[in-house]
Amino acid sequence: MHSTFASDNFAPVHPEVMAAIQKANLGHAIAYGADPWTEQFNQVIKKVFGPSAEGFVVFNGTAANVCSIQQTLSSWQAVICSTAAHIGTDECGAPQAATGCTLLTAPTVNGKITPEACSAFLHGNGNQHHVQPGLISITQSTELGTVYTIDEMKKLVHFAHQHHMLLHVDGARLCNAAASLGVSLQALTSDIGVDILSLGGTKMGLMGAEAVVFLQAGLAKDFQFVRKQQMQLASKMRFLSAQMVALLDGDLWLRNASHANAMAKLLETKLRTHCPQLPILYPVEANALFVQLPSMDILQRLQKKSFFWIWDYEKAVARWMTSWDTDPAFVDTFIAELKCLIR
Amino acid sequence: MHSTFASDNFAPVHPEVMAAIQKANLGHAIAYGADPWTEQFNQVIKKVFGPSAEGFVVFNGTAANVCSIQQTLSSWQAVICSTAAHIGTDECGAPQAATGCTLLTAPTVNGKITPEACSAFLHGNGNQHHVQPGLISITQSTELGTVYTIDEMKKLVHFAHQHHMLLHVDGARLCNAAASLGVSLQALTSDIGVDILSLGGTKMGLMGAEAVVFLQAGLAKDFQFVRKQQMQLASKMRFLSAQMVALLDGDLWLRNASHANAMAKLLETKLRTHCPQLPILYPVEANALFVQLPSMDILQRLQKKSFFWIWDYEKAVARWMTSWDTDPAFVDTFIAELKCLIR
Amino acid sequence: MHSTFASDNFAPVHPEVMAAIQKANLGHAIAYGADPWTEQFNQVIKKVFGPSAEGFVVFNGTAANVCSIQQTLSSWQAVICSTAAHIGTDECGAPQAATGCTLLTAPTVNGKITPEACSAFLHGNGNQHHVQPGLISITQSTELGTVYTIDEMKKLVHFAHQHHMLLHVDGARLCNAAASLGVSLQALTSDIGVDILSLGGTKMGLMGAEAVVFLQAGLAKDFQFVRKQQMQLASKMRFLSAQMVALLDGDLWLRNASHANAMAKLLETKLRTHCPQLPILYPVEANALFVQLPSMDILQRLQKKSFFWIWDYEKAVARWMTSWDTDPAFVDTFIAELKCLIR
Amino acid sequence: MHSTFASDNFAPVHPEVMAAIQKANLGHAIAYGADPWTEQFNQVIKKVFGPSAEGFVVFNGTAANVCSIQQTLSSWQAVICSTAAHIGTDECGAPQAATGCTLLTAPTVNGKITPEACSAFLHGNGNQHHVQPGLISITQSTELGTVYTIDEMKKLVHFAHQHHMLLHVDGARLCNAAASLGVSLQALTSDIGVDILSLGGTKMGLMGAEAVVFLQAGLAKDFQFVRKQQMQLASKMRFLSAQMVALLDGDLWLRNASHANAMAKLLETKLRTHCPQLPILYPVEANALFVQLPSMDILQRLQKKSFFWIWDYEKAVARWMTSWDTDPAFVDTFIAELKCLIR
Repeated sequence: MHSTFASDNFAPVHPEVMAAIQKANLGHAIAYGADPWTEQFNQVIKKVFGPSAEGFVVFNGTAANVCSIQQTLSSWQAVICSTAAHIGTDECGAPQAATGCTLLTAPTVNGKITPEACSAFLHGNGNQHHVQPGLISITQSTELGTVYTIDEMKKLVHFAHQHHMLLHVDGARLCNAAASLGVSLQALTSDIGVDILSLGGTKMGLMGAEAVVFLQAGLAKDFQFVRKQQMQLASKMRFLSAQMVALLDGDLWLRNASHANAMAKLLETKLRTHCPQLPILYPVEANALFVQLPSMDILQRLQKKSFFWIWDYEKAVARWMTSWDTDPAFVDTFIAELKCLIR
Repeated sequence: MHSTFASDNFAPVHPEVMAAIQKANLGHAIAYGADPWTEQFNQVIKKVFGPSAEGFVVFNGTAANVCSIQQTLSSWQAVICSTAAHIGTDECGAPQAATGCTLLTAPTVNGKITPEACSAFLHGNGNQHHVQPGLISITQSTELGTVYTIDEMKKLVHFAHQHHMLLHVDGARLCNAAASLGVSLQALTSDIGVDILSLGGTKMGLMGAEAVVFLQAGLAKDFQFVRKQQMQLASKMRFLSAQMVALLDGDLWLRNASHANAMAKLLETKLRTHCPQLPILYPVEANALFVQLPSMDILQRLQKKSFFWIWDYEKAVARWMTSWDTDPAFVDTFIAELKCLIR
Repeated sequence: MHSTFASDNFAPVHPEVMAAIQKANLGHAIAYGADPWTEQFNQVIKKVFGPSAEGFVVFNGTAANVCSIQQTLSSWQAVICSTAAHIGTDECGAPQAATGCTLLTAPTVNGKITPEACSAFLHGNGNQHHVQPGLISITQSTELGTVYTIDEMKKLVHFAHQHHMLLHVDGARLCNAAASLGVSLQALTSDIGVDILSLGGTKMGLMGAEAVVFLQAGLAKDFQFVRKQQMQLASKMRFLSAQMVALLDGDLWLRNASHANAMAKLLETKLRTHCPQLPILYPVEANALFVQLPSMDILQRLQKKSFFWIWDYEKAVARWMTSWDTDPAFVDTFIAELKCLIR
Repeated sequence: MHSTFASDNFAPVHPEVMAAIQKANLGHAIAYGADPWTEQFNQVIKKVFGPSAEGFVVFNGTAANVCSIQQTLSSWQAVICSTAAHIGTDECGAPQAATGCTLLTAPTVNGKITPEACSAFLHGNGNQHHVQPGLISITQSTELGTVYTIDEMKKLVHFAHQHHMLLHVDGARLCNAAASLGVSLQALTSDIGVDILSLGGTKMGLMGAEAVVFLQAGLAKDFQFVRKQQMQLASKMRFLSAQMVALLDGDLWLRNASHANAMAKLLETKLRTHCPQLPILYPVEANALFVQLPSMDILQRLQKKSFFWIWDYEKAVARWMTSWDTDPAFVDTFIAELKCLIR
C-alpha cells in the first residue's frame, strides 16, 4: 500500500529500529526481561525521564493504559478522562473489564479537559454509593490533534494532587507533543509532577512496543505482577526493549515526531491555501487534522484514492494523520486530488 | 550469551522469520488486521488445520490461553487441567483473574491427565454451590517434555464431549509434539476433535507471536471483541502474521521442531552413555529433559558454566531444554562439563 | 425516628410482611431454596408475570441489576441507560466491576430515555475497538419520580429487539409505576416484551428482598450459578421468599404503592397551594418530588426538622419521597414547617 | 419440616433474635447503616473483639469471605487454604471471580492446615510468573467439625506474619469453636493476632446476617466501598444489625453454640454405645459428625426418615450436624432408627 493519511500505525518500521531489532538477534538471551537490551532500556528510561523513573515494556497502548490503572487504583475507584479519551472510546471496555474501575468522562474543548471540568466528579467523595475518583487521565497529544500546554498540564497535576488523585498521561503520541512544544520528554512529564505515563512507540516508528513509565518514586512497587497477570510480559523481551532504546536513546523520537508534525502543518498550510472553504475543526498542533468535506460523496471519492478514517459520517469529517514517513510530495498529490474533487 | 539449555525462548529468531519480518516492512498497511499478511495467515491456518479452522494472532502464550477460556466459558465454569499445567503454575493467576473461572487440577503421570483423573470433578455437576467444568485443557507437548499419543488425546476429547465440555490444547510446543509423533498439525488437533488451540510460535523460532485457533465451526463467533478487550490486538499486526506465515506455510515448523527434538534425544543418549547414574525423570519425547543431579552444589556449578532453570531445589533437579538452534557440538561440551563435575 | 420524606427505604417493614416472616419461622427447612416458601414464590412469580416468568430472590437492588447484566451480556458488551440511572450513579461501580461491561449513558428528559437517544450508541456495531450494546436498561418508575407510559416502553422494547438487544427494567419501584398507570405488573413487563426485571421489594415495605425475574422463556438458563457466584444465594431463603409472597400474592404491592403515590400527589397539591413559588422540577407521577428551595439555608433548616436527601447543593434542590407508611397528617406538618421557613 | 441433622442453616430463627427484629421495626431509620441499631452493633463488636475491631454486616458467608479477600489482596496475590475450605469448594468460584485472586490449597489433616503445609507455597515468592501468597485462610471450627487449638492458631498467625501475610478466619461457626475451647471470641481472634474474620451468624440462630470483622487497626480503611461494590450494603441495615446485636451482646452466641456442640457430643456418645461398628471419621469437637454407614442403601433409607447431606457417595459417609434447636429426644429417635436399619 502506498502512503496514506490513515494513521501513524499504518506506517512501516523505521530503518534504524529494524536495524536495532536485527542487532538484538544475537545468540541466546535470558527470557522475560533479564537481558542486556532490557537493562539498557531501564537505564535509558532514567536518562530520558529522570532518576526516579521506572519503565516496563508492554505490547500495546491499551495494555499500557490498563496496567497504569490497575497498578494505582482499587476497583471502586474511578478515572476521570475526557469524552474523547481513547481509554473510553477505543479500547473495547478493556479498562473497565480488566480493572473494574469506572471511567468518568468530563466534557472537553478541543480534546482537552480542565480542573473545572474534573471538579464536577468530586461531589460524591467519601460517599459509599459512589465510585471515588483516584486518577485523572489525559491524552497528550490529544485524540483531536491538539496539545496541552505545560501550564495546562501543571494545573491538572496540581488539581489532581490537591484532591489525592494521581495524574496519568496517555502518551501514545507524547513525542509529537514534546516536539510541538519544543520541550524534552522529562520537562513534559516528571518535571511537572506527572505520576504515570503510557509511553507510545508503535506510532513513532517502532514495530510494536509501548511502555508504562512510573515517574515518581514508589509507584512501580510490585508492578511486575500486574504486567504478567495482564498478559503483557514478553518472553523474548529483548526485541521490544531494543526498539524502545532505538527510539529514545538518541534523537530518533524527536526526528520522527518533528517530521510528522511538520507534515501536518504543511498539509494544513496547503489546505488553507488551496481549499480555504474547508473547515479545519481543531487547532493543528501535532500530527492530525480533522477536516469537514462538502459531502460524504466527495469524502468517499477521496478516500478511494487514498485511504483514511471517517471521523463523523453525518458531518462528512475526515481525520488525516501524518507520520514519520510522510513524503511532502504526497501532501501535494493529496491536495491536488482533493482540489479536483471539490472544484 | 552463548547457547544454553535454559529454554526454547532464550533462542534467537530464525533467519527465515527475520527475513519475513523485513519483507513485511513495505509501505503502509491497514492496522489491526486488515492487511495482506494477516489475510495470508488466515488462509494458512485453514490450510494447516482444515477449512473450519479460524486463527487469531495474539502476543503471548498466557494470552492465548486466557482468550481461549474467556471465549468459551462463563465465570462460574471451570477448567480441568493437570497439576503441572502452565495455566495454573506459571501465568501469575491470569486465567482466573481475567476470566473469573476456576482451575481444577487433576493429578498427573508424566505431565499427562486422563479421563479417569478428570472424572473426579464431575460429582458436583448441576449443584449451584460448585463451579461447573466446561473445558479440559491439556498441554501438548507437556510441561514435562512428554507427548500425549493420538489415542490418549482421542479419549480425552471423547470424555470432554460426552460431558458437554470442550477440549483445549495449550500448544506452546505443539510443533514438537507433532514432530515427535510424526503426524501433521491437523491430525493432532482438528481431525481428532480438539476444539480450541493455543498455538505457540515464539518457542519455535519466532520473535513473538502466538495464535488462538478455533478448530471447529462456530466457536470463533465474536472472538474479535475478546481479543481486543484482553489487550491482544496488535496495531501493526502484519509483523505478527508474517512471522506465523513463515513458520506454518512450508515446513519451517517441522524442521525447527524436529531439530529441537533430535537434540534432546542426543542429549539423552549422551547422558545415558556418559553419566548413566543420573536419573532422567520423565520419558524424553519432545525437547526437554529433567535430570536429577547428585547435589545442588554440582547443579549450581554446572549452571554457572551454562545457564538453565532449576526445577526442584530440594531434589537438585535440572530442566534442560533444546531449541531450533541447538548445536550438537554444544551437547558434547555440556556433557563433558557435567562429566567433569560429577566425577 | 419519626416519619420522614427521606426515602422509601427509611420506612419500617409492613405488618403483613412481618407476620409472614414469623409464620415462616417454623421448624427446619431445606437451605438454599428447596423450601416450601420458595416453591410458593416461584408459583407466585408465574401467576403475576405470566407462565414464562422465572424469578430468583436476591438480597438487594444493586445485586438484582448486576445479576441481570451478568446473565445476559459478555464483558465486551455494553448497557445503554440514562445519565440518571441508578446502575451508573449509585452502585459504586458494581455493574462494571462485577460484569466487566460498560455503561453507555444516554441523555434523558425527566429521567427517561428514548430510542432516538439510544441510537447514537449503535454506530460502532461490529467494530472490534468498541463495546457492543447488548442491553437497554430503563428504570421504572424513574430515579426522578416519573413513569414511562406503556407506549414509551413498547417503543424501547421494539428498538432493543430490532437491534438484537434485550430490554431490562430496573424495577426497584415497579409497583409504584404500575399503580400510577393503573395496570398490572404483567401488563407493564412480560406483555409488552420486557426481557428481564429487577423487581424491588424492600422499598415496597419488605425487610429486605428483591428478585431477578426473567420474563421470556430461556433467559434464566444456568442463572443459579450466576446468583451463587455473585454472593446472592441466601441460606435461609425461606425468609426472603416469604416476604416476596406476602407482597405479590394478593394486593399488598398495589395498596402500598398506591398509598405512597397518593401521598406524593397530596404533597404536591399542598405545595402548589401553600408554596406556589417553589419550582417542582419533574412531573410527580410516582412517589417522589424534587423541589427547589429558595436557598440552602432554608433547605438545611427544613432538613433539621425532618431529614431528607439533598439532590443538588448548588441549586438547593430537595428530594422528598413518600412511602407505604406516610401519614397524611405528616404531609400537613411538613408543609406547615416549610411555609413557616420560606415566609 | 421436623428437626434434622442436615445443617445448622436448616434451623429456624431463635426467638430472641426474632424479638430483636420486631423491636427494630419501629418508625423510620436512616438507610445504609446510619441507624441506632448499627451504631450499637459497632459498639458491640468492639466490646466483644477489642477496641481495634471494626465490624461490617453483610448478607452471607460467601460474601464475608470474598470481601475479606478483596479488602486485603491484589488480584495477583493468593490465598492459602485447606483442600476442604468452603471458599474453595462451596462458593461456586466467587472468591476467584470477584477478586481475581488464586486459591492455593494445602493438604489437611482433619480439616486443619499447618505452617509446614503452607510453606510449600512460598517457593515462588518474588517470581513474576507466580501468584504471591498474601493471606492464609483457616476455617474455625473446620468444615470437618474439628477445632484448631489456640496454640495451633498462634503458630499459623506467627507463620503468616513472618512471611508478610495476613491471617483470615472463616468463622461461619466461630462460636462453636469458642464454646468448644471454652474461650472468649476475643481470645480466639484479636488476642492471638488474627487479622480478619468472617463472623457467622446465620448458622447460630439468626435469620440471615454475617459480618466482616477487621481485628487489627488500619485494616478496615475504605472497606465501605468494597462492601457496597460487592453488593453487600443492606438498605434497611437495622434489621441485620439488630440480629447481630441479639447474638453477641449477651450470651446468646454461647448458649446456642454450647447447645449445638453438646448435642453433637450426645449423638457421638449414643452412636458409640449403640452402633459401635460405625466409623466416626473425625474428632467430634464442634457440632458435626461424619459417619461411615455400612452401605449407600442404608444411608438412603435413613436419609428418607430424616434428611441430611451425603458427604461421600462412594464410601457412604453421612454428615450429621446439630444446631441451636436440636432436641435431645430427636437424637434418641435418630439413633433408634439407625440401629433398626443396620441391625
